[in-house]
Amino acid sequence: MSTLQQICTALRELEECTILMHRRPDGDTVGSAAALGLALKKLGKRVQYACDDVITPRYVDLLGGEKHFETPCGKLIAVDIASPELAGRFAEYAQNADIVIDHHESNIGYGALNLVRPEAAAAGEIMFDVVRQLVKIEGEIAKALYVAIATDTGCFLHGSTTAQTHRVAAALMEAENFDFRPVNRALFVVKSRASMLIRSRILETLELFSDGKLAVLSLSEQMILECGASEDDLENIAAMGMQMEGVLAAATLRQMGENEYKVSLRSTGRVNASAVCARFGGGGHKMAAGCSLHGTEQQCRKMISAAMLEELL
Amino acid sequence: MSTLQQICTALRELEECTILMHRRPDGDTVGSAAALGLALKKLGKRVQYACDDVITPRYVDLLGGEKHFETPCGKLIAVDIASPELAGRFAEYAQNADIVIDHHESNIGYGALNLVRPEAAAAGEIMFDVVRQLVKIEGEIAKALYVAIATDTGCFLHGSTTAQTHRVAAALMEAENFDFRPVNRALFVVKSRASMLIRSRILETLELFSDGKLAVLSLSEQMILECGASEDDLENIAAMGMQMEGVLAAATLRQMGENEYKVSLRSTGRVNASAVCARFGGGGHKMAAGCSLHGTEQQCRKMISAAMLEELL
Repeated sequence: MSTLQQICTALRELEECTILMHRRPDGDTVGSAAALGLALKKLGKRVQYACDDVITPRYVDLLGGEKHFETPCGKLIAVDIASPELAGRFAEYAQNADIVIDHHESNIGYGALNLVRPEAAAAGEIMFDVVRQLVKIEGEIAKALYVAIATDTGCFLHGSTTAQTHRVAAALMEAENFDFRPVNRALFVVKSRASMLIRSRILETLELFSDGKLAVLSLSEQMILECGASEDDLENIAAMGMQMEGVLAAATLRQMGENEYKVSLRSTGRVNASAVCARFGGGGHKMAAGCSLHGTEQQCRKMISAAMLEELL
Repeated sequence: MSTLQQICTALRELEECTILMHRRPDGDTVGSAAALGLALKKLGKRVQYACDDVITPRYVDLLGGEKHFETPCGKLIAVDIASPELAGRFAEYAQNADIVIDHHESNIGYGALNLVRPEAAAAGEIMFDVVRQLVKIEGEIAKALYVAIATDTGCFLHGSTTAQTHRVAAALMEAENFDFRPVNRALFVVKSRASMLIRSRILETLELFSDGKLAVLSLSEQMILECGASEDDLENIAAMGMQMEGVLAAATLRQMGENEYKVSLRSTGRVNASAVCARFGGGGHKMAAGCSLHGTEQQCRKMISAAMLEELL
C-alpha cells in the first residue's frame, strides 16, 4: 500500500483530529489545513486547527473564521511543517504527529506516517491528491487548495512551479462553486495603501553602487509611522531591490531603534550574502542573509555597502 | 473537416507566407507569430513576419531578431489581430488574409479561413493547438508559446485564464529544451530602474477622495525626464491607482505639454469612466476611458475629481 493510500485510510478511520500549521502561517499551510479540515468534516469527523500565531485576516476565512485552539487532541496532522520546532509552542505535538504532509526537502519525516514530496511546489499540491481520495473537490475546498498553491508559487511565477502545479490548477478551475478571479484579485492585485506608500518611500532612499550592481535601501521608524504600515504591509520588502534590472545584490536596512538597523541582504549569488553578513556577526545563505548594525543610518549604509563591494566577485 | 484541420492542411501545403502581427505588438501577437513561423520553417517553408511597429527588445528575440519586412508575400496569416485596421499600414493585407488565428470576441472572421476562439485566454493557446499538429513542440517554439500565454494572462492572474490555459502551460513546461524560469523572471520580476522610480514618484502625487474610493495621480514631463522613463517604462501606468485597497476609480493625469493633460481613467464600474470622460469630450468604456484637459495640474486635478465624485453612484 502506498503512503498516500495509508494516509487516506488513517484519515477515514479517525474520529477526531487536530491539524497543525506552522508559525507565521502563510497561504500554503492555512489553505492546505483548511482543505483537509473541510474534507474531514464532510466525512463527519471532529476537526480542530492549531497554530502558534494568529491567522492573518487574509487567510482566516479559509478556516471558517476559526483562529486556533489551545489543546490539540485526537490524531495529530502536521501540514507544511518542515520540522517540529516550526510549530512553535505546539512543537511537541508536531514531534509526535500521526501524519505529516509536506513539500520541504529538509523534512526528515518526523511523523508516524509521512507524505513528503519535495518536488511539489506547495503542500497544497499534495493535499489535492489526498483530499480528492476523500471527497469531491468543490467550493471552499477548491478555494483553499487554490490559495495554498497560488500563494506558494507567487501565482505560478516562482521557479518551483511545475507542470503538475498547472495541472492541479486546471482541475481546481473546473471545480464547481469556485471562482478563482476574486481570489487572484485579493491575493495578487489589491495592495493596502500603506504597503504601496511605504514601497514608494523606500525607493526614494535608493543608492546604487558599482555600476548599478549593488543597491542599498532603508526604512526608518518614522517612515513606517507616517505610512501607517503594519508588519503585513512590510511583507517581502527585502525583495524590492532585487526587482531592479541589473541589481545583483540589495541590502534593505530597517531601523529597529536609535542607531540600530536590521539588514536584510538578498543576492543573485554573485555576492555571497552570508559572507557579507558574517562580517557583522550575522548569517544566512548565499542568496539571503541578515545581520544587525549599530550607528547612524549613513554609517550603517556605508558599512554594508563597503562589505558588499568587497564581496562582489 | 474542422477549421483546425483545414488550417493545418493549408499550412502544410503553402510554400511561402507572411505572418502579420498587430500594431503595438505585445507578447501574444509576437509569441504566437514566432511559434507558427518557427514551425513552418521546420517544415521547409519560407516565412517572413510583418508588423507596423518596431518589435520591442523584450520580444524581438522570439523572432530570431527579425523586426519586420516591407512587402508581405505568399500566403497571409493574421495572428491575434481582432480587425484588419489593427495591422496599421498592413491593414489591406490583413483584410485579404488567407488565414486568421485569433481569440478576440469582436473578430468577425475576416479571413478566407478563420480559427477564432473567444474562450481562449491568448492567441497562443490556439496556436498551441495548431503548431502541435505540425511539429513537435520544444525549445524556442515552446518558449514563444509560453511568452504569448503568460503575458496575455499576466502570468495566469487575469480573469481570462481558464483550466485550458493551465493545461497548455503544463504541456509547455514539459517540452524539451525549454526553461520557463528565466522567462518568468525577465517578464514579471525584473523591472527597469526608471519604471520603478517613476511609479514611486507618481505615488507621491496621490490624492484620495470620498473616503478613499477615488484616486487621482499625476505624471509631469519633468518627472519623466528626471527618471529617464521611456514609453516602455510607462506601460500600464494607469492601472496603478486601481491596485490600492478600497479604490473604485483612479484617474492618472499625464502632462502632454504646458497646461495640457491626458487623463486615463480606470474604474471597477461603480464610477462610469466613459460618462466622466464624455464630459470633457473624451470616451471609452465603463471601466476604462480617456480624455484631454487644459489647465494647470491643480486645475485639471480638480476638474476630473469633481466629475468623478458626481458620477460615483
